[in-house]
Amino acid sequence: MSEKGKLLVISGPSGAGKSTVVFKAIEGRSDVCFSTSVTTRSPRPGEVDGREYFFIDFKRFHEMVENDELLEHAEYVTNCYGTPRAYVEQRLNEGMNVVLDIEVLGARQVRKKMPGAVLIFIAPPSLIELERRLRGRGTDTEEAILGRLTRARQEYQEANFYDYLIINDDVEKAAKQLGAIIEAEHCRFADWADWLRSN
Amino acid sequence: MSEKGKLLVISGPSGAGKSTVVFKAIEGRSDVCFSTSVTTRSPRPGEVDGREYFFIDFKRFHEMVENDELLEHAEYVTNCYGTPRAYVEQRLNEGMNVVLDIEVLGARQVRKKMPGAVLIFIAPPSLIELERRLRGRGTDTEEAILGRLTRARQEYQEANFYDYLIINDDVEKAAKQLGAIIEAEHCRFADWADWLRSN
Repeated sequence: MSEKGKLLVISGPSGAGKSTVVFKAIEGRSDVCFSTSVTTRSPRPGEVDGREYFFIDFKRFHEMVENDELLEHAEYVTNCYGTPRAYVEQRLNEGMNVVLDIEVLGARQVRKKMPGAVLIFIAPPSLIELERRLRGRGTDTEEAILGRLTRARQEYQEANFYDYLIINDDVEKAAKQLGAIIEAEHCRFADWADWLRSN
Repeated sequence: MSEKGKLLVISGPSGAGKSTVVFKAIEGRSDVCFSTSVTTRSPRPGEVDGREYFFIDFKRFHEMVENDELLEHAEYVTNCYGTPRAYVEQRLNEGMNVVLDIEVLGARQVRKKMPGAVLIFIAPPSLIELERRLRGRGTDTEEAILGRLTRARQEYQEANFYDYLIINDDVEKAAKQLGAIIEAEHCRFADWADWLRSN
């Protein structure tokens, strides 16, 4: 009896602490990995094809979109990004839980293409706290901070199709909740119904 | 912000180790309790009304059925049993997670009346192992053992509406999975959608 991995889609506003929570939750676990995206942008010094990204040209990117080879994709002014379906499915079949850190729009595409995906939204304890964290980072202009807050409010309205919400008021607690979600999802009755009936 | 408890419906064949798993999982937790059933049978020496059971007469039982005051009920040849809705809802509103240890037929009734209930089936690693455990207990006749095995096979076919399956091949692991399910279910997006939107 082999067990497939779960596709874990993680979203949430910039400043919610998504990466910190995910890294804390998967610390010391060998059954969780991040997905590797395709991108049309050029590799930066030190970036390795197939590690940070799969670097591809626009022609190949659009071919992948046409052939439904991407679980989700986003096209920006200068570059395109996407999640390669074959890569993700291979890791899942190997039993790996695969993490996708993507925006709400991309998550909506994944939900349609992979009904078994688990959608998790990580939110800060409040928008006031989010603003405090964004200012504390000191990396954004005033305009960028206000833009991120508007974006967060918008995502809160759009995120109603997610399965889980983790409120990151304490990283340890949030990481524990993420770990519990992964464990619980591996007990989904539907995944074991055939096993049970043939038992 | 107060958080309601979850109604946890636990089923599984006799000999699967349900009680052991549940007791191990809730050890030291003050946020999980068992429900108290109503019954028409007489109290045994030492049993206290409202502790082991709420002891009621047939007239009151049938009134409760008529008035939809029971989340599920079963009528046997000599006695009737049921889960009182008001009692369960009161505990849930207090923030307690309430455990119901009931059969598959009862669970189907609960699913209809409490859509938010979490249905968990606990199974032994195999029917061969179940038979071994039942014989090991030495409490059942040969006929009873065969009856229990037939009943288990039947429940496996009927249980397809459960949310989770825990395979009890190791009590520690099974208890950990039950704990994870409780934790994960408290992160259900739907339960927090209003909070998020008003945040």
